[in-house]
Amino acid sequence: MKRTLNGWTGAALAACLLLTLSCAPADTGTKAASSYAEDRAQIEDLQARYLFALDSSDLDTYVSTFTEDGVLDIIAYQAKGRAEIRKKIEEAQNVFDPTAEAVQGSYAPTGRHNITNIVIQVDGDRAVGKAYWFHYGNNNPERKAQIDSYGHYEDEMVKVDGQWLFSKRVIYNEQVADWISPGGNPKAW
Amino acid sequence: MKRTLNGWTGAALAACLLLTLSCAPADTGTKAASSYAEDRAQIEDLQARYLFALDSSDLDTYVSTFTEDGVLDIIAYQAKGRAEIRKKIEEAQNVFDPTAEAVQGSYAPTGRHNITNIVIQVDGDRAVGKAYWFHYGNNNPERKAQIDSYGHYEDEMVKVDGQWLFSKRVIYNEQVADWISPGGNPKAW
Amino acid sequence: MKRTLNGWTGAALAACLLLTLSCAPADTGTKAASSYAEDRAQIEDLQARYLFALDSSDLDTYVSTFTEDGVLDIIAYQAKGRAEIRKKIEEAQNVFDPTAEAVQGSYAPTGRHNITNIVIQVDGDRAVGKAYWFHYGNNNPERKAQIDSYGHYEDEMVKVDGQWLFSKRVIYNEQVADWISPGGNPKAW
Repeated sequence: MKRTLNGWTGAALAACLLLTLSCAPADTGTKAASSYAEDRAQIEDLQARYLFALDSSDLDTYVSTFTEDGVLDIIAYQAKGRAEIRKKIEEAQNVFDPTAEAVQGSYAPTGRHNITNIVIQVDGDRAVGKAYWFHYGNNNPERKAQIDSYGHYEDEMVKVDGQWLFSKRVIYNEQVADWISPGGNPKAW
Repeated sequence: MKRTLNGWTGAALAACLLLTLSCAPADTGTKAASSYAEDRAQIEDLQARYLFALDSSDLDTYVSTFTEDGVLDIIAYQAKGRAEIRKKIEEAQNVFDPTAEAVQGSYAPTGRHNITNIVIQVDGDRAVGKAYWFHYGNNNPERKAQIDSYGHYEDEMVKVDGQWLFSKRVIYNEQVADWISPGGNPKAW
Repeated sequence: MKRTLNGWTGAALAACLLLTLSCAPADTGTKAASSYAEDRAQIEDLQARYLFALDSSDLDTYVSTFTEDGVLDIIAYQAKGRAEIRKKIEEAQNVFDPTAEAVQGSYAPTGRHNITNIVIQVDGDRAVGKAYWFHYGNNNPERKAQIDSYGHYEDEMVKVDGQWLFSKRVIYNEQVADWISPGGNPKAW
């Protein structure tokens, strides 16, 4: 059941289903009780929590946005599973956070990844998506805001126990020759 | 029926409607089966697909985000209908993609339009909206990320066969004197 | 009732409730008729309307995004209630809009705040959230687009008469030493 455009059908059916069951309260997040808007809302929240965790080096939260066997693919390498993803992020912190390099200036600099232009296609408990990311920071003596890199994501997501998680995230970066997008309109599906 | 704040009413009524029909499976995307969240989710996806298509010069996809008689208004000119919109975009590629000009540096530069601050108001099968856009790129010898322009959109959208499309998009740009916003809080409705 | 992941349960129950009431049309935005997606969609729209109002100095609209006794906390000061919030914004316009300072160049410059990475958690008629903001403008002789500041929001929201409003917004800014985030992954709840 594709839910990009006619997602409400499933929602209405879910309501029917619950009614058949005498309107019994169901607090278990049944699979049927969904819609494109619900799935997209939860995935957008996942996308945002992922970036807050990354930028604040909250690696427990960061790896928890992936499935147990999730894949992080940043072209230069692929990491599979939460333990390996955590290890790679720790090793390559400066890839994700340029401000992790030498600190200049009076107070601690920060760096922030942002996501925009989120495209999501849902098919039952699976979803695919693409989006833009860009990064700015202030690791300079004046703490001046500066955009420094950008690229895009190609994502695969799975709903596990009612919660959307990344099963695969591929990251492209237009600031590094070996890491740029192959070009064309990305389509991970 | 306005659906900005009390959109759920329509949703619940839709469920009722389906129940009156004995809960018959309805896979046809009935108009009633909607809500503000569903409409907004689909429109946000449209907005994102529009920009991926524009930045990758995927003009087939780009023009398909407009209705057959849709209008693209970038103040300097207005184009009506998919064929004319395509022609104008082809002619003025560098207006939308500054990196289409002379290429410097070692590998192909890219440029990316981003959308933020999306306001959407839905009234049945019609919607109006406004949002910010900004563009960054790396068309310089160092492939350094640089923001280079920004403005805002004023949009009109229509739901055609269950799919939201742009019936009119007006684009303002704060980097060109003749193209700037008239000022004030934009209200396309 | 938390609605981050299993929001549909409430929605289905709401449908049941309406059915118990003989499917009587209810156009009053009953509290029960909601879901995570509906709440999030309305809050995202609120977030966007807040920024359009701020950047266009539409202070009537700006203060109307807060509850009557809402709090705006920008660390340097806290304002409580719409009248006080309006007064503070008027006094400190250049804090929110750097372009309100000396104007250079041929036509009026503009400045724009953008929101990204929106995390929202809903519990009935109350919600908490966090998000990134960044600002760019063109207050320079060439009207060149330049990012100049960024930070994050920590928000508390309340649904009043079916409409989500800010009951508290805390703003951090990474460009001013006394105004920066305390660090770590922000959690306003």
